[in-house]
Amino acid sequence: MSTSSRSRIAVNGYGVIGKRVADAVTQQNDMDLAGVSDVSADWRARMVTQKGYRLFGATDEHVRTMQNAGLDVAGALDDLLETADVVVDCTPKHVAAKNVELYRQKGIKFIVQGGEKHEVTGHSFVAEASYASAVGRDSTRVVSCNTTSMVRTLAALKHAGLLRRARGTLMRRATDPWESHLGGIMNTLAPEPEIPSHQGPDAQSVDPELDVVTMAVKVPETLAHLHYWAVQLTRPAEKDEVLDAFRTSPRIALIQMADGLTAINSVKELMADLGRPHDNLYEVALWSDMLKVEGDELFYAYMVDNQAIVIPETVDAIRALIGQVRDPHESIAKTNAALGIGAIFDALGGR
Amino acid sequence: MSTSSRSRIAVNGYGVIGKRVADAVTQQNDMDLAGVSDVSADWRARMVTQKGYRLFGATDEHVRTMQNAGLDVAGALDDLLETADVVVDCTPKHVAAKNVELYRQKGIKFIVQGGEKHEVTGHSFVAEASYASAVGRDSTRVVSCNTTSMVRTLAALKHAGLLRRARGTLMRRATDPWESHLGGIMNTLAPEPEIPSHQGPDAQSVDPELDVVTMAVKVPETLAHLHYWAVQLTRPAEKDEVLDAFRTSPRIALIQMADGLTAINSVKELMADLGRPHDNLYEVALWSDMLKVEGDELFYAYMVDNQAIVIPETVDAIRALIGQVRDPHESIAKTNAALGIGAIFDALGGR
Repeated sequence: MSTSSRSRIAVNGYGVIGKRVADAVTQQNDMDLAGVSDVSADWRARMVTQKGYRLFGATDEHVRTMQNAGLDVAGALDDLLETADVVVDCTPKHVAAKNVELYRQKGIKFIVQGGEKHEVTGHSFVAEASYASAVGRDSTRVVSCNTTSMVRTLAALKHAGLLRRARGTLMRRATDPWESHLGGIMNTLAPEPEIPSHQGPDAQSVDPELDVVTMAVKVPETLAHLHYWAVQLTRPAEKDEVLDAFRTSPRIALIQMADGLTAINSVKELMADLGRPHDNLYEVALWSDMLKVEGDELFYAYMVDNQAIVIPETVDAIRALIGQVRDPHESIAKTNAALGIGAIFDALGGR
Repeated sequence: MSTSSRSRIAVNGYGVIGKRVADAVTQQNDMDLAGVSDVSADWRARMVTQKGYRLFGATDEHVRTMQNAGLDVAGALDDLLETADVVVDCTPKHVAAKNVELYRQKGIKFIVQGGEKHEVTGHSFVAEASYASAVGRDSTRVVSCNTTSMVRTLAALKHAGLLRRARGTLMRRATDPWESHLGGIMNTLAPEPEIPSHQGPDAQSVDPELDVVTMAVKVPETLAHLHYWAVQLTRPAEKDEVLDAFRTSPRIALIQMADGLTAINSVKELMADLGRPHDNLYEVALWSDMLKVEGDELFYAYMVDNQAIVIPETVDAIRALIGQVRDPHESIAKTNAALGIGAIFDALGGR
């Protein structure tokens, strides 16, 4: 743990998540970005130094390649880890599992992403569900975008005493916008071969009490995921009770079809209009006018920005590991204020 | 009713459905195509005469436009209706409602498509569920592609005594392939504003006993719809019992991910390889290896070719109205044999 009041954070891997984590860390008043480590020596690495962040190579060889490309390199990952209190591993899926040995050897606290198995850290993190059990730990795993959205929404229903069981269909964006030219799918739908899909059990890694089953399908778009849910409530309820339950989470944004937000691209455009970096939608954007309660059944749909939703969770996870902020709500409020979460409600005329 | 053993069928509207109905009628050994009426005088009308079908203009004005375009026109819709026993209305949504008055005036039996309201004919048709109640009627309505698929599959579960209630998420193709240059959506997902979507109540117009709720979303592809279902069974069941229930319908094709049919485009390619006209998938294509039973809950997904699934139903609806074939299974078997339904199972090595 840092002895200063500001924690020093290393980001290992400057991809879709790493770049957003680095930016978000610099927006906090209790953290500093120690630096960023990566393997690329092209435009992506150049953006690290352009932003004034310290750039490190994953290995000495990467350092040399970066230097040959004319990049200003501060050292290798090993050096970066010496100067940081927590490292956020944002390397591609399954790569982090190999880095963990290095982190343990260095005695640095670490966070892995949802692509890694729960067992890698033994703790899975969503701020509103498992911050308390992460306080002071050596490591945690910020679960995937889909799982984060599920835990946020289902935890809100659970805390209101309304959740019996949830069955969801997940439309997954095919690939990320920045690499659409490298893959993706066109004019088709590709079901995940297994039912249930892995997201249900993954949500249970955060809250084992959740009775949840998911099915998933890859769709030919790049903007965001879209989830449809059929939920069995514990009792018949009114629509307002359900909306009130969702309103207890500051990271669930209630949006409306009637407000012109009729598709996921219009929600992204709203994020751009709000001036958010990368048009990030940090919230679960849930359509309140589409939501329907029939007796003891609840039906709703929401949008998940797979590139952005885990960013506030990651900031909270850092704070939990550092251990100076023990109250989940305090950390969540700090993060939200720093990232402008809540501004969407102002923009839409309140909740 | 026709006094000959072969019925004479008129098709009014030569679009996505009309062209397929016309072709399917000519493949039956108890029907003749009296002719096709349309409003276009371009390549679409030319295909009617090219195929050797008699072409009629919707009005005298359309007849003149067609003649000016050098088309060989047999007369106007009025003339066509004089020579037919049944007219299948395949005009665009809500246009048929206006044609109905003409059909009644001419005393001709008629079929409308699923875009019209149930009240237009007072009877909604899916062969495996409501053929018997259509026998000898003056008119019926062949329900939409989505509804047809739902009734086929849910009726199979119901007949096996397994269905308690069904909750489904429907991914709807954005537009048809032939008119993708005129509209559609790109790189987004557009939820239908209302939950439940209209398909659930529509299925109840065929079988009021069905306990079904649907949610729908438009997706950026043109090939087919894809449905995901979470079904509450009447009791815990084995997977084989459920598959056996689906196998009782000759219009449900069990396909497998493990057989390489991993997305909707590969299923369409199989239809092309089978030599089907327009690559038509007349069946509900349901993934048997993806299907999951957990206690008294059932989860599965299937594909619906919105351009083709109602074609065999329409042929059966014609036969039901004519009234010579009173046994649903006899008509279904005749239609299936004529259209090659069943060949998919041979192609895939049996059921």
